[in-house]
Amino acid sequence: MNPLFKELTPWLDKAYALNSALVLFEWDAETEAPPDAEEMNAKAVEILSTEYYKTIINDTVKELLWKLSDETDLTAQEASIVKELRKQFDDMEPIPQEDYQAFRGLTARGPSIWTKAKNNNDYESFAPVLKEIIDYQKKFIKYRLEASDKDMRPYNLLLNDFEEGFTMKELDLFFENLKNEIVPLLQMVVKKKDNINKDYNHRQYPIEKQKVFNRRIAEHVGFDFNRGVIKESAHPFTTNLHNRDVRITTHYHEDNLESAIFSTIHESGHALYEQHISDDINGTPVGTGVSMGMHEGQSRLFENNFGRSRKFWIPLFDKLKETYPENLSDISLDDFILGINKATPSLIRTEADELTYCLHIMVRYEVEKMIFEENVSIDELPSIWNQKYEEYLGVTPSTDTEGILQDIHWATGSFGYFPSYALGTAIAAQIQAQLRRVMPLDQYLEEGNFKPINDYLTEHIHRFGKTKTTNELLKDMMGEEFNPQYYVDYLKEKYTELYKDL
Amino acid sequence: MNPLFKELTPWLDKAYALNSALVLFEWDAETEAPPDAEEMNAKAVEILSTEYYKTIINDTVKELLWKLSDETDLTAQEASIVKELRKQFDDMEPIPQEDYQAFRGLTARGPSIWTKAKNNNDYESFAPVLKEIIDYQKKFIKYRLEASDKDMRPYNLLLNDFEEGFTMKELDLFFENLKNEIVPLLQMVVKKKDNINKDYNHRQYPIEKQKVFNRRIAEHVGFDFNRGVIKESAHPFTTNLHNRDVRITTHYHEDNLESAIFSTIHESGHALYEQHISDDINGTPVGTGVSMGMHEGQSRLFENNFGRSRKFWIPLFDKLKETYPENLSDISLDDFILGINKATPSLIRTEADELTYCLHIMVRYEVEKMIFEENVSIDELPSIWNQKYEEYLGVTPSTDTEGILQDIHWATGSFGYFPSYALGTAIAAQIQAQLRRVMPLDQYLEEGNFKPINDYLTEHIHRFGKTKTTNELLKDMMGEEFNPQYYVDYLKEKYTELYKDL
Repeated sequence: MNPLFKELTPWLDKAYALNSALVLFEWDAETEAPPDAEEMNAKAVEILSTEYYKTIINDTVKELLWKLSDETDLTAQEASIVKELRKQFDDMEPIPQEDYQAFRGLTARGPSIWTKAKNNNDYESFAPVLKEIIDYQKKFIKYRLEASDKDMRPYNLLLNDFEEGFTMKELDLFFENLKNEIVPLLQMVVKKKDNINKDYNHRQYPIEKQKVFNRRIAEHVGFDFNRGVIKESAHPFTTNLHNRDVRITTHYHEDNLESAIFSTIHESGHALYEQHISDDINGTPVGTGVSMGMHEGQSRLFENNFGRSRKFWIPLFDKLKETYPENLSDISLDDFILGINKATPSLIRTEADELTYCLHIMVRYEVEKMIFEENVSIDELPSIWNQKYEEYLGVTPSTDTEGILQDIHWATGSFGYFPSYALGTAIAAQIQAQLRRVMPLDQYLEEGNFKPINDYLTEHIHRFGKTKTTNELLKDMMGEEFNPQYYVDYLKEKYTELYKDL
Repeated sequence: MNPLFKELTPWLDKAYALNSALVLFEWDAETEAPPDAEEMNAKAVEILSTEYYKTIINDTVKELLWKLSDETDLTAQEASIVKELRKQFDDMEPIPQEDYQAFRGLTARGPSIWTKAKNNNDYESFAPVLKEIIDYQKKFIKYRLEASDKDMRPYNLLLNDFEEGFTMKELDLFFENLKNEIVPLLQMVVKKKDNINKDYNHRQYPIEKQKVFNRRIAEHVGFDFNRGVIKESAHPFTTNLHNRDVRITTHYHEDNLESAIFSTIHESGHALYEQHISDDINGTPVGTGVSMGMHEGQSRLFENNFGRSRKFWIPLFDKLKETYPENLSDISLDDFILGINKATPSLIRTEADELTYCLHIMVRYEVEKMIFEENVSIDELPSIWNQKYEEYLGVTPSTDTEGILQDIHWATGSFGYFPSYALGTAIAAQIQAQLRRVMPLDQYLEEGNFKPINDYLTEHIHRFGKTKTTNELLKDMMGEEFNPQYYVDYLKEKYTELYKDL
C-alpha cells in the first residue's frame, strides 16, 4: 500500500463506520423504529452526520488528499478512492458545519412530517419544512458555486450530483424527444386499453401469501438472502451498508397483486448491483453503485424489460396461479401479460405503467427546474403540479395526497434525483440491447436462468462500483455511450407488438 | 446551566449518539442483519466503539470532569451525570485504546460464533473465543485494579460493575441461605410434581397466533407501542436507545405455549423500566436503569410475582382459551396455574420454574468464580458445569448445547452478570411486598389494571434512572435496603399454598 494512502485509511475506516450507522438509522426509521422515537433518533443522526462531516472536512484529510491527488504511485483502486473522496471533500467543504448538521437533522425529521401530511392530505403542514429544505439546498448551491469556479446553473449542480455530465440541456432534449415519441404511441394504446381487463389484479390477495411469493421472486432473479433482507415500508426502497448487507423493502396491498411484485423486482435490481460490488472496493467510498441513473438502469431492467416480458413469466406464472388459485384460475398467461402492460395515464408514479412512467418524471423535473431556476413559491407548487399532470397525462389529482405529496424524495432533501429514474429507464433498454447481442436472453428468461445474466452484469457493470463513470461503463461494455434511442425503439416495438391484436 | 457543565454537553451528545448507534447495531445483529453481514458490521462496531472510548477518555473531558467533581453549583441532575461519567472514565481509562477496540470487535463477533457452536453442540469451536474474551477480561481487571488503589478480588470487580456493593461475601451468604431454604421446599414439591399434568403446554400453538397473543399481553402490562417494538431473536432480550425507543424480543416455539408468554412478560418488565425514565435525564449517561439487579427486579416482578399468579390470569385466561380453543378447551384456570408453576429440576435456565431458577444461577456464579479466582482451564468448564448441575439440580446435561453453551452472556463478554438475575428475583419479591402494603395489588391484577402499579413503580423507581443506587431506591421507597428474606418468605408461602392439595 502506498504509505501516504495508508495514512488516509483510518479516516476512510471512520467514514465507513459512521456512514454505516447513518444508513442503519435511516433503514430503521422507515422499517422499525417506534413512532415516538423520531425526535431523539434524529438527534443521534444529526450528531453522527456532523462526525461524518468532520471526518472528511479537516486539515489532515485535506493535506493528504492534495498530496495524494499528485501521487503517481497509486494502484487504480487507491487512485479512484482518492478521486471520489476528493469529490466529496469539494462538495462538502463550502458548506459550513452548522448548516450541514442542521440540514441533516431537518431531513432526518422530514419523512415523518411528510408521512403525516400525506396521510392527512395536508400540504400546508409539510410546506414550511419543504421550504426550509429548499432554502438550505439553495444556500448550499450558492456556497458550492462560489467555492468552485464553475459557471453553472443552480439546478445543473443538483443534477450533476446524481448523474455526472447530465445537465438541463441534455435532459430537455431527452424529455422533448420522449414526449414526441411517447405521446402518439400512448394515444394508440389508450384507445385500445379498454380491451384489456385486469380486474383480477384487484381481487383479495392475502398479505401472508404475497410475502411468500415475493420472497420467491426475489430469489428467482438472484437476490442473495445471505447478503440481504426484505422488509416492508410505506415507500419501497433499497439501502446498503456494504456488499454483504443489502436491504430492500416492499409494500403490500391486499387488493393489488402486481404492486408488490414489481416493487420487489425493482428493488431486487438495485440490490443485485450492490451485492455484486467487488470485494476489493467493498466498504470504501467507491464501493457502491456509480450513479442513480445506473442504479435505476439495473432496477428498471429487472422490473420492466425482464419483469413485464412474457418470457420472464413462463417459469413463474403457474406458481403464481398455484399461490392464488381462488383468484387466478380463469386468467391465462396472455391475459396476465396484457394486464401488467396495460398503459393508462394515471396519478401515481410508483404505480405507473412503463409507457407513461417518464411523463410522471417529466412533471417532477419541470417542477424542480421552476423551484431552483425560477424561484417559484412553495404555495404554488400543488397547482403547478396538477396543471402539469393535466397537460402531460390528461388526469388531475383530486387531492394533494395523490398529487404533490405522493413522493418521499423532497422530504429527504433529494432534488435532482427524479430525472435519474428516466435516465435509468433508458439505460435499462440500452443494457438489454447489449444482452441480446451477447447471449440468448429470451432463452435464459424462459428458463428462469439468471446466473449468466447476473454474471454478465457483474463483470461489466456491478463489480466496478464508482471506479468507472456511467458512460465509461456503457462504452467499455458495448462501444457506445448513453444513447436514449434504444429506449424509444424498445417502447415502440414492445407496444406495437403487444397491442397489435387488440 | 452551570457553564462548566455546558462545556461538557457536546461530549455528552456525542457519547449519546455513538452509544445509540452501537445499541442499534447490536439490536440489528440479533434481529435482522443478513448472515454474511457480520464481519463488516462488526468492523463498524469496533470503530464506533473506539470513537465512543475517545469521546470519554481524552484530556478535555478529564479536566472538565475533575473540575466538575469539585463544583458545588450543580443541579442534582448535573451532579449525577458528572458522577456517572466520572465512574465510566475511571473504569475505562486504565484500559488501553487498542485493547478496548479489540475486545469490542471480539465481542461483536462472539455471539455468532457461539450460535454456531450451540447449534452444532461444538464447544471446541467456541472455546478459543471464550478463552480470548476471558483473557481480555482478566487483563482489564488487572489494569483497573492497578490504576485504582482498591484492594479487591478480581471477580468482585466484575460483580461490582453490574451491582455496586455486592461482593462474593454477600453473594456467598445469599446463595447459601437460598440453598438451605429452597432445597427442602424443592424436595416437597418434586414429590408432588407428577400430580400436575401440563401436557397441554406442548400441543401445537401456531406462531402467528402466539404473536397476536403476546402483543396483547405486552399491552396488558403497560408496554407502550408508541415507544417500543417487539421482534423475534434466538435469545430474548431488551435494549433501548432512550425512553421513547425501547425494544424487546421473544422467541416462539410451536410446541411450547408458555415459553414465549413468560419471555414476553419478562422483557416487558425491563421495557417498562426504560420507557418510564424521566425526560429530564433521557439520553444522558444516567438515563437508563440503575443496575442489572434492579432491572431484573422489574422483569422478574412482572414475569413471576405477577405473571405466574392466579389473579393475573383471571382477566386473561378466557382470551388465552379463545386464542387456542382446539388446545385448551379441557383446561381450567386452576390446571393452568398449577401448570405454569410446576417445579422440576431441569437443564435450561431460561425455561426454569421460579423455584429452581436460582440454582441455575448458582451454578454460573460458582463457575465464574472459578474462572476468575482459581484460573480454571477453559477445557474443564463443560465437565465442571455438568457436575454442578448434578449436584444442585440432580440432572446432568447430555450435550454441551443444553449445558455450558446454553447462554449468550459470555460470548458478549459479560461476566459477573448472572448473579443479577438472582438478586433481581429477590428484589422483585421485596418490591411486591411493598406494593401489597400501599395498594390493593391483587385487586388491580384481577382487574388487569396496571396503571396504578406502573405509576407507583415509575414514581419510586423507574423515573430515577441511575440518579439513585439500588439500595437508595429501596430505602427511599420502603425504609429498608435490600433484604432477601422477602424472597424466601414469598417462595415458601407460594409453594406451600399452591401444592397443599396435591
